[in-house]
Amino acid sequence: MNKTIILEKRPVGKPQLSDFKFTDTELPQIGANEVLLKTSLVSVDPYLRGRMSDAKSYSAPFQLQQPISSGIVAEVMESNNVAYTKGDYVSGLLEWKEFQKSEGKGLLKVDPAAPLSAYLGVLGMTGLTAYLGLTEIGKPKKGETLVVSGAAGAVGSVVGQIGKLLGCRVVGIAGTDEKAEMLKAKYGFDAAINYTTTSNMREAIATACPDGVDIYFDNVGGEITDGVLANINQLARIIICGSISVYNETSVPMGPRVETTLIKNSALMQGFIVSNYAAKFPEAIIQLSSWLQAGKLTYSETIIDGFDQIPQAFIGLFEGQNNGKMIVKI
Amino acid sequence: MNKTIILEKRPVGKPQLSDFKFTDTELPQIGANEVLLKTSLVSVDPYLRGRMSDAKSYSAPFQLQQPISSGIVAEVMESNNVAYTKGDYVSGLLEWKEFQKSEGKGLLKVDPAAPLSAYLGVLGMTGLTAYLGLTEIGKPKKGETLVVSGAAGAVGSVVGQIGKLLGCRVVGIAGTDEKAEMLKAKYGFDAAINYTTTSNMREAIATACPDGVDIYFDNVGGEITDGVLANINQLARIIICGSISVYNETSVPMGPRVETTLIKNSALMQGFIVSNYAAKFPEAIIQLSSWLQAGKLTYSETIIDGFDQIPQAFIGLFEGQNNGKMIVKI
Repeated sequence: MNKTIILEKRPVGKPQLSDFKFTDTELPQIGANEVLLKTSLVSVDPYLRGRMSDAKSYSAPFQLQQPISSGIVAEVMESNNVAYTKGDYVSGLLEWKEFQKSEGKGLLKVDPAAPLSAYLGVLGMTGLTAYLGLTEIGKPKKGETLVVSGAAGAVGSVVGQIGKLLGCRVVGIAGTDEKAEMLKAKYGFDAAINYTTTSNMREAIATACPDGVDIYFDNVGGEITDGVLANINQLARIIICGSISVYNETSVPMGPRVETTLIKNSALMQGFIVSNYAAKFPEAIIQLSSWLQAGKLTYSETIIDGFDQIPQAFIGLFEGQNNGKMIVKI
Repeated sequence: MNKTIILEKRPVGKPQLSDFKFTDTELPQIGANEVLLKTSLVSVDPYLRGRMSDAKSYSAPFQLQQPISSGIVAEVMESNNVAYTKGDYVSGLLEWKEFQKSEGKGLLKVDPAAPLSAYLGVLGMTGLTAYLGLTEIGKPKKGETLVVSGAAGAVGSVVGQIGKLLGCRVVGIAGTDEKAEMLKAKYGFDAAINYTTTSNMREAIATACPDGVDIYFDNVGGEITDGVLANINQLARIIICGSISVYNETSVPMGPRVETTLIKNSALMQGFIVSNYAAKFPEAIIQLSSWLQAGKLTYSETIIDGFDQIPQAFIGLFEGQNNGKMIVKI
């Protein structure tokens, strides 16, 4: 008995529970050089929605009737691999199964002294995305204004804190008053906007950013982005990290054309995929760990209990049910 | 008697002759350190349309009831400045007047051995824009595919030739069969598309670019750009140099949102203004001159005769009346 979640149908629009199917697979028997892993923590992330479609993209689409995979922390139950011993914890891109085997390729042994969930968050892809997107494309300079959309999300909340550590004025955009308040109180943002109660984003950004916007770290796209772009400065840098507002659109979303805004401001807009920056992971993790140990980085998690809840937790991302990183604990 | 063209009204939509007014100003008397210039060649360029609006942009808007300025080659008639003697030719950003004075600031003495009009084109802002936009943002690598829109225009035709010199496969987009033919026959493009007779730009680009698009040098924006963006490769670079298709729009033009395309391809899109790269002008001019002397760069000009024709020549840019650089000869 080894519960496994497969992609039953490709979602059309917002993912539904019926797009996923639970099956039972055999308990794996490990061979030479392999380890048996027991899933402990599962990361659910907006980008997985892209892999559930079969459109051409930066990573291959999930196959129908095959297990979905995401960032996972697992415990080593048995090991025929000299690099691992029973009781070790590892993180990696693994399948949505209770148990699976691995030859260890792509696995990272994690330090059980740190909270394990941090390896799916601030010390994992979330933190790397925030740090490398902001520094490699955004190139923040002291005194510049940084705007972050999806700011209460896992990536956004880390981006804002790093922006402050690097000397920027930081303005966050989120979807509830509670989240906006938290951005300021917990993460140290200078200002926050609740877009759901803001009728004119363009004006709201102008008010929150009296010196204009130098860097925009975009996790959402759509009309929020339109409002920010109307306020960018000369030589602005726009990091397109996510576009959760349009992931579920079934037709190509339309919006104001950006060409003239980019020309008028000599601005740069670049799509960011963390895996293109793998060479920089080691130095980034050292920097993130040092900030974390010094108490300079804080993070939120929404932890959902139980393997059966993985599909619902994923769907919940599109309903704003998470506060920071969404993790399912088995 | 010194004919001068002033901005009478800010154009709404496409510029009209009535937006301009001819006045007579005094013949200037030069003082210490000044030169008297007689206008010889006047460059009219699409970007001037932007300066005729009062929207915030990278260069200040023209003032109403004041002379318009653009790139001009002029002859020195009198000189109180040791750097210039009667009979010299200079180029610079000067006013639409038959005669004007200058202290020499921003003027470049030009070599009368080269064709004077080249200093408004391939050895002037046109060539610098093509070369620096392509190399600084596009960063072409041998074997990559470069697509150029507005390819028969002054900038576009030079971009394509430089792309070939740097080892790219080059595909041009233009607005008539004659222009498309010229791109291949005269400028050495590998393929050319007449967008006015193409019902599906996306498919036309896919056919012309079997390996996808690595670099897109965009002079036009709008639906042509949509078709190109649908075919970009991973890590594509998009140089937004002009957006002539929307300069005359009176409302914000709408189009498919680009965020997901940029993320899926980790692509970069950057607005390019040549004046931000002034530090690179000297080396760029050396490179362009060397190609020109070696016969490796060819260019087209449309030369219109007479000071009175300047406004109509400018308007003609938006009617496709030019073939290469549009210049008015006085």
